[in-house]
Amino acid sequence: MKIALGQINPTVGDISGNILKILDYANQAKSLGARLIVFPELAICGYPPLDLIFKPSFVRSNREALAYLTERVEGIGVIVGYVDVKSSVSKKLVNAAAFIDHNQIVGRQYKTLLPTYDVFDEARYFESTNEYNVFTVDDVRFGLTICEDIWYQREWENRNYTSDPVAKLKLLDPNLIINLSASPYVINKEKVRCDLIQNTAKKFNLPIIYVNQIAGNDELIFDGRSFVADRDGKIQMVAKAFEEDLIVVDFDSRSQRFKAQNVIEGDNQLENIFKALVLGVKDFTRKCGFSKVVIGLSGGIDSAVTACIAKYALGAQNVYGVAMPSKYSSGHALDDARVLANNLGIKFDVIPIDKMMQETLLNFQDNVYALKNSLSLENIQPRLRGIILMAISNEFNYLVLNTGNKSEIACGYCTLYGDMCGGLCAIGDLLKTKVYELANYINVMAGEEIIPRSTITKRPSAELRENQFDDDTLPPYATLDKIISYYVEEHLSVPQIEELGYNINLVQDVVNLIDRSEFKRKQSAPTLKISQCSFGVGWKMPIAYKAKYILEDLLCQVKL
Amino acid sequence: MKIALGQINPTVGDISGNILKILDYANQAKSLGARLIVFPELAICGYPPLDLIFKPSFVRSNREALAYLTERVEGIGVIVGYVDVKSSVSKKLVNAAAFIDHNQIVGRQYKTLLPTYDVFDEARYFESTNEYNVFTVDDVRFGLTICEDIWYQREWENRNYTSDPVAKLKLLDPNLIINLSASPYVINKEKVRCDLIQNTAKKFNLPIIYVNQIAGNDELIFDGRSFVADRDGKIQMVAKAFEEDLIVVDFDSRSQRFKAQNVIEGDNQLENIFKALVLGVKDFTRKCGFSKVVIGLSGGIDSAVTACIAKYALGAQNVYGVAMPSKYSSGHALDDARVLANNLGIKFDVIPIDKMMQETLLNFQDNVYALKNSLSLENIQPRLRGIILMAISNEFNYLVLNTGNKSEIACGYCTLYGDMCGGLCAIGDLLKTKVYELANYINVMAGEEIIPRSTITKRPSAELRENQFDDDTLPPYATLDKIISYYVEEHLSVPQIEELGYNINLVQDVVNLIDRSEFKRKQSAPTLKISQCSFGVGWKMPIAYKAKYILEDLLCQVKL
Repeated sequence: MKIALGQINPTVGDISGNILKILDYANQAKSLGARLIVFPELAICGYPPLDLIFKPSFVRSNREALAYLTERVEGIGVIVGYVDVKSSVSKKLVNAAAFIDHNQIVGRQYKTLLPTYDVFDEARYFESTNEYNVFTVDDVRFGLTICEDIWYQREWENRNYTSDPVAKLKLLDPNLIINLSASPYVINKEKVRCDLIQNTAKKFNLPIIYVNQIAGNDELIFDGRSFVADRDGKIQMVAKAFEEDLIVVDFDSRSQRFKAQNVIEGDNQLENIFKALVLGVKDFTRKCGFSKVVIGLSGGIDSAVTACIAKYALGAQNVYGVAMPSKYSSGHALDDARVLANNLGIKFDVIPIDKMMQETLLNFQDNVYALKNSLSLENIQPRLRGIILMAISNEFNYLVLNTGNKSEIACGYCTLYGDMCGGLCAIGDLLKTKVYELANYINVMAGEEIIPRSTITKRPSAELRENQFDDDTLPPYATLDKIISYYVEEHLSVPQIEELGYNINLVQDVVNLIDRSEFKRKQSAPTLKISQCSFGVGWKMPIAYKAKYILEDLLCQVKL
Repeated sequence: MKIALGQINPTVGDISGNILKILDYANQAKSLGARLIVFPELAICGYPPLDLIFKPSFVRSNREALAYLTERVEGIGVIVGYVDVKSSVSKKLVNAAAFIDHNQIVGRQYKTLLPTYDVFDEARYFESTNEYNVFTVDDVRFGLTICEDIWYQREWENRNYTSDPVAKLKLLDPNLIINLSASPYVINKEKVRCDLIQNTAKKFNLPIIYVNQIAGNDELIFDGRSFVADRDGKIQMVAKAFEEDLIVVDFDSRSQRFKAQNVIEGDNQLENIFKALVLGVKDFTRKCGFSKVVIGLSGGIDSAVTACIAKYALGAQNVYGVAMPSKYSSGHALDDARVLANNLGIKFDVIPIDKMMQETLLNFQDNVYALKNSLSLENIQPRLRGIILMAISNEFNYLVLNTGNKSEIACGYCTLYGDMCGGLCAIGDLLKTKVYELANYINVMAGEEIIPRSTITKRPSAELRENQFDDDTLPPYATLDKIISYYVEEHLSVPQIEELGYNINLVQDVVNLIDRSEFKRKQSAPTLKISQCSFGVGWKMPIAYKAKYILEDLLCQVKL
């Protein structure tokens, strides 16, 4: 039996748009001979719908859309994710999959395991259920699982999960497991996911069809890569990464094997990151109703990489680069910005800020007092640049792309309302060392020097005062990035990081910077997530807190 | 037996500071003859600790602090909240209460009901447990519950709670229930809370001691108001609202009644709101390490009310008002700002923005093109004011208080990086009509006209172009605020709001404004929460989404 995997890109909340796309894919799959098509988790409303779920009209519309789909789809069975109401009395909601066939909803399966960690908070929205069914089409007997339901094997030790949905289904003797997913990309997740599905297939001796959405939905990027695994765990067919795709596999229910097969390309981490960010920028821009972006080009590496991502996401004609030099800007910085813009073929302008800066300082001096603190003087400059970029945004309806990287956002080496301006931060989950790697990757991929060599090789500088260099204030990025990773991602303490071979004073300084910058991160632009632990969605830290929990002073004698 | 209620103000993460405060309160209670003192939920680490909990060193320190307390406290039993590790193998965390007596941890009780709705996400952090104990001191047999554990009676229909911890405890035959809470203030919550505890006491025929923290912890304000209720539900003693307090009650275990009694003052909603915001500003400022704030004074009502709150929170000498008029500012606006500052006795300066504005426009014109779009021209003005306020913040280390109200934040009638600047938004959860009520309350409370009459009576204006008034762009606030409430807080749909007597086009326009402003709210300052549904913590909406879920176009024939 031929089964199609409908790897679509739903827009959150766009129920009518999503349902038209689902119908279109179902019709395409039918014309390719498929008897059944599987769509991702919550495909009707898009994932994650977040608090839209609390609007009864939203839930009602998504159920009406399912009814509409049931009426309209002909000649192919459809399995699709949506939000259901468990009972009209309790009004409790469930994360559901429906199996539609012959203009009827043949059955429903509700999600058991509700992820409530990292970027997920499904316990906020849904009730967990524990009832399982197996559905039959011809000689195929399949059980449905929804995303986390199939992650029990890997995650159970860290979660409060008490039962394995696949094990429960296995008792009903299916010959196929189907999983509807909305599983966000993070670096190397594709391998984790494949291992998991392969192990689950082997453990239960059951083939698995795994359908994941692709989408940039706010800060989350979904990479697709839907695939099928034989009951011995062998992966037989993989859909595209970061693109919509429709693949059809031929499933033999007797042997419980898939006949279709394609070659799986080796994974390249930088290629994946680049594609992820391109999709993230493209979808955020489009789904927010913009077509063009403006980027402040400093001649530095962060804005250069951001501009490259924007060009690949939106096309050169939709990217506008603006250099905003000051008297502290080096000559080569402006040259580098201009060369980059030229290499990318994007529109480019120069709008200096010196006169605005002078007028700001005069305005203070003439009306109240002269500003003297170097912090005030430095921060005014990026804030004036922010005014310029936002004025362009307002004047022409361009989205401002923010160019901050994770190292500076971690340490607060950035100016709130200044270089932190923007509707979306493209590389804010990339440590500076990773930004360099990506810059080199881009030049290699393009087969030419798009990002000027001098941008990559020069000593990083914020250029907000004479002879200012990042490594005067911060440790070298190779060291800084390691400390950030240990502290932020691995939750190591200062003494633990010291044990790994770092100077304790240096570590304490960096940790203090990180702790004290929470107020900036609270107001940062949405940031595309590509790491296990980004500063955007899934990062929930207090602002007005004291990190005085080491207690050396108080507790020298007391140890547990 | 005398029992003390230690209504303290813990700082999140400041474990050493909190433990010293707990010791101090325990010693005070002992000197007042108390045999036992009860502290709030997670008092050792402060509530909510959020993702600090994922740092093993944080959890370890908070347990070490409990060990330290156990060693040090003498002559009084202590019941205190902390984070515990359920078992050293699983490393699962629990929200715990410890009962310490005679330098020993006599027992522990873990939280069963983990709130995962609104501002709470305890399922992210803790495991739920289901074991209950009763502890004995002299002839008092008490059971411990932690915050939500006692809310089963009220909330169960909307949550996934399957058992009632108080009912479970009742089976163990206690003669007293103690509840450790960290229950945030929202308007009228004090009544909800009293009703709940009274009903629970009556239902189980058990007296209850309820101890809540007071604190401003980021956006959440905890109002304290700890109290005791007899087994017939009669409230016998209530601690202060929005202030630390130590009260001692005399509990007679035979009659299961409290002898102590004080007079409960009638509640005044506006007084509560004002006190809440004063505490919120005071604690955020202090806990972030600031002592002074700067506020842009426009002569309008929002900045006037914010300045009053700041004065009551920090003292007049710690509040700096800056008027930043432009050619569009009316003469009376500057007068009103000056009079307000004078009435409050705060430092006041005038820093006009016209020259900076001219220079910005010239800078565009001379270097690239002239800005013509009125949106760009209007937005530059508040952004220049943002630069001025932030420069003052950087120069003198003042916290910028944002002055936005909920009506404008709802509709996006505010400028990102402009009037949306600030470290904290004091009145961002007050609809404009409520801001007016609070302004009148402040003048009545003060017994004099602090906020100038003309500020209260004039037609609201953003003063960003000639003859611009809010009600040219927005409906009158009385109407607008109702529509916002129905849509945002009650989740009504456009047709449902129309049915309540509003013009459907008007409603649709307002709803569109609200939906489209999510990107601004994503980057707004932390906002003190006083309503059931604020735009700050607990508000989780997608940004790049389409609210196309009404489906009229698509689904005219299909209805469920």
